Amino acid sequence: MVLLREELGDVLRDARRAQGRTLRDISATASVSLGYLSEIERGEKEASSELLASICTALEMPLSIVFTEVAQRARRAERVSAPVTLPVATHSEDVVSAA
Amino acid sequence: MVLLREELGDVLRDARRAQGRTLRDISATASVSLGYLSEIERGEKEASSELLASICTALEMPLSIVFTEVAQRARRAERVSAPVTLPVATHSEDVVSAA
Repeated sequence: MVLLREELGDVLRDARRAQGRTLRDISATASVSLGYLSEIERGEKEASSELLASICTALEMPLSIVFTEVAQRARRAERVSAPVTLPVATHSEDVVSAA
Repeated sequence: MVLLREELGDVLRDARRAQGRTLRDISATASVSLGYLSEIERGEKEASSELLASICTALEMPLSIVFTEVAQRARRAERVSAPVTLPVATHSEDVVSAA
């Protein structure tokens, strides 16, 4: 099962690291505790919509960009977690010969 | 401020209505109370990642599609809420003549 908070956490952490910024910097700017921000980035805690907006503002990243990246990550994760279809014999003789 | 739960609620409600399905149908399939689902659709309550995954499964809609639509809605909302830049006089004489 693909979970929003895990994909979102990865996107927020990658954005912060790409900017060369620390958890301490973003947590101070977004007025969230360092520990809570760290849990959000690790996909362990859900961020409220207001807190997410604050974090996005601190990262100077519009919500639309964040969710475009979340959608891309979710698509990759869905491919990985999709059920695998194995080839199935369609003739009875194939089934017999395979047995 | 663009809020995730408001954009997400709109996307989930639109998807349900486009399928001609009722709150009762989706709430039963996703194992969430009808009242809570209704509040999520109205952007009044945050859905946990697990509950969101259940609702998406009930709608037969991958999370990647949901968040592609959330990103599109957020982009439109950001345009509307962007600060308007008014032309500013750059010469003191303009300021005087405008007064």
